[in-house]
Amino acid sequence: VTGIPDDVAARLDRLESEAALRRLAADYCQAFDDRGLDRFVALWHEDATWELLPGTVLTGHEGIRSAVEGAWGALPATRHLTTNHVVEVDGESGTGSAQVLAFIQAADGTWSQGVFTYTDVYERRNGRWAFARRGAVPHVQAPLPAGP
Amino acid sequence: VTGIPDDVAARLDRLESEAALRRLAADYCQAFDDRGLDRFVALWHEDATWELLPGTVLTGHEGIRSAVEGAWGALPATRHLTTNHVVEVDGESGTGSAQVLAFIQAADGTWSQGVFTYTDVYERRNGRWAFARRGAVPHVQAPLPAGP
Amino acid sequence: VTGIPDDVAARLDRLESEAALRRLAADYCQAFDDRGLDRFVALWHEDATWELLPGTVLTGHEGIRSAVEGAWGALPATRHLTTNHVVEVDGESGTGSAQVLAFIQAADGTWSQGVFTYTDVYERRNGRWAFARRGAVPHVQAPLPAGP
Repeated sequence: VTGIPDDVAARLDRLESEAALRRLAADYCQAFDDRGLDRFVALWHEDATWELLPGTVLTGHEGIRSAVEGAWGALPATRHLTTNHVVEVDGESGTGSAQVLAFIQAADGTWSQGVFTYTDVYERRNGRWAFARRGAVPHVQAPLPAGP
Repeated sequence: VTGIPDDVAARLDRLESEAALRRLAADYCQAFDDRGLDRFVALWHEDATWELLPGTVLTGHEGIRSAVEGAWGALPATRHLTTNHVVEVDGESGTGSAQVLAFIQAADGTWSQGVFTYTDVYERRNGRWAFARRGAVPHVQAPLPAGP
Repeated sequence: VTGIPDDVAARLDRLESEAALRRLAADYCQAFDDRGLDRFVALWHEDATWELLPGTVLTGHEGIRSAVEGAWGALPATRHLTTNHVVEVDGESGTGSAQVLAFIQAADGTWSQGVFTYTDVYERRNGRWAFARRGAVPHVQAPLPAGP
């Protein structure tokens, strides 16, 4: 049997796009935390915007590259955990949001944990989904007690 | 090409229903934490049951509305993070469970974190998936240290 | 209408396999934490390998069974929360990774939390997806303060 009904193709495409965007959000965490520079930059479109924190806005691969290198220089280790990720796909673009629990080590070696809301815009270009924009807003943060 | 084989339609419907239920679980967290009253109540069917904690059972939109308003009055801020969400869809109904990590601020301003298991019953009415029942059981809870 | 185009069948199968693997990762947490021995062992193929911690490797249902019973004997209670789960399915096999936030109670009653990366190999045999291998690497860990 060959040929895909149009409606089936559209529904499969939406489901596959949602899966690709879940993966994008997970890759963001893993690339950031594993310090994969090329892998991290490749998650963004060339003209993408990253608002690391409210008011701190980077644009384009060069800006994103230097910002993430700056973050890695300041923070010895990090772990980001994505939860509540929801996406809304409309053809070649989409929006999404998630809550991210981040474990962050400061330069003095102490750790904190914090919850952030990420608000995203995605675009698919040449068949590849990537961030057009991601912004983070912090909620509760607290130090982690030192181990025994 | 037109026409969808019955089996394909059923498989697409199951995948789409699972996606809708993941979204429902995420929306629950975001609506609760962002204090969107109408948005929160709309996640439940009119005759739904909410067991906030073992033994504390609310029924119907009126009961759910007053319970969530009571919770918001007692707790200055909250953040709920859904993990391990699994669903079992059977046509127009489904069941599910998840572990939720909740960050909760008490009236005195102090924060705690806790893990809960949510056990859910979902129904689809008029094409819309919503909670027929959600119950929460607490596991470990601990205070968050105050920030520096 | 009957008959499924080959391409549609393959795409549905991939989406359904990804859903089955997400469920497998969630079931691992729930079975471990709820101490469902048969349920936990059934998540693994008969010849599977479990690397609980780097260098601690168990093989086969007997090895996995005795290892999980040992863990349950040593740890009064646990809660594992899966995040960032990504999978790559290729027909009857697949790979995946996730970050897991684990709340662990030690024999003395104190609790800690820690983030782990799980790296997985999955296989589908007789239509059933299960672990062929799972390994855990620890990241940050910290004690939980005792409650008030």
